Amino acid sequence: MRRIVLALVGIGALAGGIAATAPVSGQSDGEAAPIYGIKYLHGYRDWHLISVKRLAGKQLTGSGAELRQLRAQLANDIAIKAFRDGTLPFPDGAMIAALHWNEDSSDADDKALAAGFPAAGLHSTFAGSAVNVQFMVKDSKKYAASGGWGFADFTNGKPGDEALHAKCFPCHAPAKDRDFVFTRYAPTP
Amino acid sequence: MRRIVLALVGIGALAGGIAATAPVSGQSDGEAAPIYGIKYLHGYRDWHLISVKRLAGKQLTGSGAELRQLRAQLANDIAIKAFRDGTLPFPDGAMIAALHWNEDSSDADDKALAAGFPAAGLHSTFAGSAVNVQFMVKDSKKYAASGGWGFADFTNGKPGDEALHAKCFPCHAPAKDRDFVFTRYAPTP
Repeated sequence: MRRIVLALVGIGALAGGIAATAPVSGQSDGEAAPIYGIKYLHGYRDWHLISVKRLAGKQLTGSGAELRQLRAQLANDIAIKAFRDGTLPFPDGAMIAALHWNEDSSDADDKALAAGFPAAGLHSTFAGSAVNVQFMVKDSKKYAASGGWGFADFTNGKPGDEALHAKCFPCHAPAKDRDFVFTRYAPTP
Repeated sequence: MRRIVLALVGIGALAGGIAATAPVSGQSDGEAAPIYGIKYLHGYRDWHLISVKRLAGKQLTGSGAELRQLRAQLANDIAIKAFRDGTLPFPDGAMIAALHWNEDSSDADDKALAAGFPAAGLHSTFAGSAVNVQFMVKDSKKYAASGGWGFADFTNGKPGDEALHAKCFPCHAPAKDRDFVFTRYAPTP
């Protein structure tokens, strides 16, 4: 992937002005998300684990339906180094992906847990169907108006609309003292 | 890390018989877990994400106290390829790490969510303090008596006792049709 991106950048450089629009390392073709112009970052599934989360409440669509999600946050090489070193603000080139899934469960899994630990009444849930993925990309010049971060949200590879993306930065504002990143690096057991 | 391990294997080969006890790639010094003899696998935090889980119930110690854990499963290169290709059984050299944390929450996080999505009543939880890490290591000859898998459980870098490790394989038996691995590969959003 890295080799392909470098090749693309090389072609861009040869073609002159095209180099300015060459994708950030890790990006590829596809529709750009509004406002920040970030494309779906192919290859993020091989990034490093920052942490995991769960979100419970009602669906954001306002349908009133229950929302139960399990989530993982991954970081590229630059971002994970910053997390581990405690570097703030994150350096340019840092990228974070937040993977969201519907929370699912399996009677067979719970049965196995009950056989192993009969007194514990354990209920296990796991990442079921994919919901969406969100990206944060650090470029302190390009995204100077939003704390140096560009934001993007994709569902089935398609970016969300402008109204959704307009919420990203204001929503992250309370995490200003952590360079607008809510996720903390989970300790290594 | 890989370079260091290869160097260790090299030294072992030079020293003759020591080579036979050279650690599996990814392993290092430290106390070996009972039964299967697996040591703490330094470097697993950089493995690839398989999935995430949550476990709720009562503490396995029998204290009656509440248990709420968020969990992540990571795979080394060999294991993640097998997950993605749907290869069963897993090839020798496949390694899986299950990271377990106490589930934690933050009023500040929930306040930020409430500001962004007032009608959704969202509650977010995240990986808090580390509980333990469990490893599965595939070696079809060495671990022929347990489906080709060796198991290990570490808390603060120290292996659990023999009684705990004796439960691993029987507990995984119901997942025999998935080569004794409960965790399914989570889709990429």
